[in-house]
Amino acid sequence: MFTLPKGGLALAGLDEQLLQPGVKGLPITEPLRQGAIGVQDWNVLHADTSFPVALLKSSALRHNLGWMRDFCARYGAVLAPHGKTTMCPQLFGAQLANGAWGMTLATAGQVQVAHRFGVRRVLLANQLVARSDINGVLALMHDDPDFDFYALADSPSGVARLASAVAGHPLARPLPLLVELGLPGKRAGCRTLEEAMAVARAIAAAPGLQLAGIEGYEGLLVTNDREADLRAVDAFLGQLVQLVRQCDAEKLFGGAQVLLSAGGSSYFDLVARGLRGVSGISRPVTTILRSGCYLTSDHGLYERHIADLNAREAAADGLRPALEVWSMVQSRPEPTLAILTMGKRDASYDVDLPTALYSHRPGPGKPADLPPGCSIVKMNDQHAYLRLPEGDAICATLAVGDLVGCGISHPCTTFDKWPLLLAVDDGYHVQYAVNTFFQ
Amino acid sequence: MFTLPKGGLALAGLDEQLLQPGVKGLPITEPLRQGAIGVQDWNVLHADTSFPVALLKSSALRHNLGWMRDFCARYGAVLAPHGKTTMCPQLFGAQLANGAWGMTLATAGQVQVAHRFGVRRVLLANQLVARSDINGVLALMHDDPDFDFYALADSPSGVARLASAVAGHPLARPLPLLVELGLPGKRAGCRTLEEAMAVARAIAAAPGLQLAGIEGYEGLLVTNDREADLRAVDAFLGQLVQLVRQCDAEKLFGGAQVLLSAGGSSYFDLVARGLRGVSGISRPVTTILRSGCYLTSDHGLYERHIADLNAREAAADGLRPALEVWSMVQSRPEPTLAILTMGKRDASYDVDLPTALYSHRPGPGKPADLPPGCSIVKMNDQHAYLRLPEGDAICATLAVGDLVGCGISHPCTTFDKWPLLLAVDDGYHVQYAVNTFFQ
Repeated sequence: MFTLPKGGLALAGLDEQLLQPGVKGLPITEPLRQGAIGVQDWNVLHADTSFPVALLKSSALRHNLGWMRDFCARYGAVLAPHGKTTMCPQLFGAQLANGAWGMTLATAGQVQVAHRFGVRRVLLANQLVARSDINGVLALMHDDPDFDFYALADSPSGVARLASAVAGHPLARPLPLLVELGLPGKRAGCRTLEEAMAVARAIAAAPGLQLAGIEGYEGLLVTNDREADLRAVDAFLGQLVQLVRQCDAEKLFGGAQVLLSAGGSSYFDLVARGLRGVSGISRPVTTILRSGCYLTSDHGLYERHIADLNAREAAADGLRPALEVWSMVQSRPEPTLAILTMGKRDASYDVDLPTALYSHRPGPGKPADLPPGCSIVKMNDQHAYLRLPEGDAICATLAVGDLVGCGISHPCTTFDKWPLLLAVDDGYHVQYAVNTFFQ
Repeated sequence: MFTLPKGGLALAGLDEQLLQPGVKGLPITEPLRQGAIGVQDWNVLHADTSFPVALLKSSALRHNLGWMRDFCARYGAVLAPHGKTTMCPQLFGAQLANGAWGMTLATAGQVQVAHRFGVRRVLLANQLVARSDINGVLALMHDDPDFDFYALADSPSGVARLASAVAGHPLARPLPLLVELGLPGKRAGCRTLEEAMAVARAIAAAPGLQLAGIEGYEGLLVTNDREADLRAVDAFLGQLVQLVRQCDAEKLFGGAQVLLSAGGSSYFDLVARGLRGVSGISRPVTTILRSGCYLTSDHGLYERHIADLNAREAAADGLRPALEVWSMVQSRPEPTLAILTMGKRDASYDVDLPTALYSHRPGPGKPADLPPGCSIVKMNDQHAYLRLPEGDAICATLAVGDLVGCGISHPCTTFDKWPLLLAVDDGYHVQYAVNTFFQ
């Protein structure tokens, strides 16, 4: 009843596993079968769980899955959501069941994890370099003819490494690669069209490799100047299309279609519009968006970006924050200070500190909104410092044992702190657990 | 042969577990028994592992274990190293085998994990507040008469919660508590001696509770002004002793001895000296240091603190950095930029970014020292940006596929990114694996 759609993934084993006392968020003193969590009748607002606890709001997840499915359909794009955000097989399954074309991943290890749970189409948004990484992926391709795998390349030497590995480990099908176009001063990727063309030609010329498409990541263009960003993204998308045209003109592409991929979580609407209907190419072009953070959004970085995106899209009901971390007041040592049982091990701190949203005295009723001046000002490994404004009634009564619900900024760096998260309904009743594999 | 001393812990099961492909650092394409890692003949410098990989240098670990054992013996203090740093049962075992009195931990969940592996004496350096946390610890005490457990209290309301829980869950022995003395503007703990005495009296008066000692954490006094810090630490230690005297005068202590605990990883020498030989108390005083980071030190925050500590101690051969993260050059997109396969998911970034120490082209030979101007200037979730100085010969030849070895700053926030770390000898030959449980 309370589960996510599986999208063809093999997830039953996760609910069969016995969870041991000590798993963050669980109040158990004896081992518990994960699948039995939904019938424990735990409510976070009654402090039935342990704290801190990471929560996924089911209604927001459902809304975001459907929103993104509709968005992609509207623009004729497909979605390979970046799985590194959550590394959660149950969420991968829900994304695939909601129409995702495949999963994007960041490392060969992540690919191995996703494949183990049944993901059968992966775009690795990096160049494979280490011998162990190349061998690992080639072993999956060799053992599983249905495994549809794509990776990036950004240098002739990288292509040579892959060509040499494939020659030593022959496959029944070529290894499909996308040339990564980068940005001056930014991360990986060719810096000029000339460099990118050299890589494309090297791929097309190498036995065992195939030029499958072109990739870029406009998310690195995010600055504090939104207007400048939009111009820079448009220019970059133009370069990606130009690269597609040039490779097509030189007949370098080897697949039945051309894959054209960009789109992080801030500007994927610009990508969807900018890459829509690329015409005049000798084979169909599939535009692949890769947002990972759309699924949970947040109460910080992505909330700000999504608000802008909603304005650009004239979307009244955009993506909703789905991820919260709840903790308990452990100490009230000073009138304007509460110490919470939540630290750097529990919530993101790389972009912003968590946002204090609600307080609640364990028991019936709804959580109270915390006032704007009430904020997390510091975190240690296992503690957060909640500064309370003077004179606010809610803050004045906040006591040891009360609950504080926080939103986070940047889902990727919160998911990776939680091997297990609990899905809750809008009344914070626990429905089921999901697992992450940041191993 | 290549193992850590076990300290009486039940660790065999860890080496029996089957590791799946995808575990960070492991180059496996088939499941592998953990205990077989030492006979794989992997050498990091030959790129036999996967990258990134987190390494523990065995010789430095051994040195640090012995150094700290001798240090404590010299000052007549005992060590309850903070286990939250590593959450690694194998390292707990080595610490206990090297004379540690017990383990310090930060959360009830961590206590459950440590107890599961056989740790039988724990100082929980926090107040238990959540019902699930209190129940979890009381269940351990109830089921295991040999489990010697201590926790903190810093408010009469916290004491009342514990007294009420113990009354509803009677134990054959009292729950021993240490009063936490805090610091104005800092974390938990009573702000004045008067408040602390009120908590001490509440504990002494509560059936089922016992006042076992006094606790403080001078590590919160660390600023950029070392001289001012030293004065502040001394003053704080004086307050701790005063609190012990006052509780003793009022006959509030209930145990056979008085536990007096302070000492993080920066100023534990000041604590050892300042709390040595507290006299005139009606029962023996045991001084418990709690440093967690001494075990691996680092190449950043603690390296700086340890250098100062060595100067204060006139110690020529102090603690050594034992933790490194190695990654591979994934891209060389610009003459002064290398992109590494290591990101926020792999190495600390909360105090300093990692320090680039060495480069090495996979194969025989020793790694080369990177020049000082060669530094990590940014990290994304899965990438690091290594800025290369112009004109340096090593940097000019750094190529895709080369290895880069980094030191980290703040072990706690690197350990928690690695479920498995590999121990290596001084030639980077892999000896065995250890596990962390940040669950």
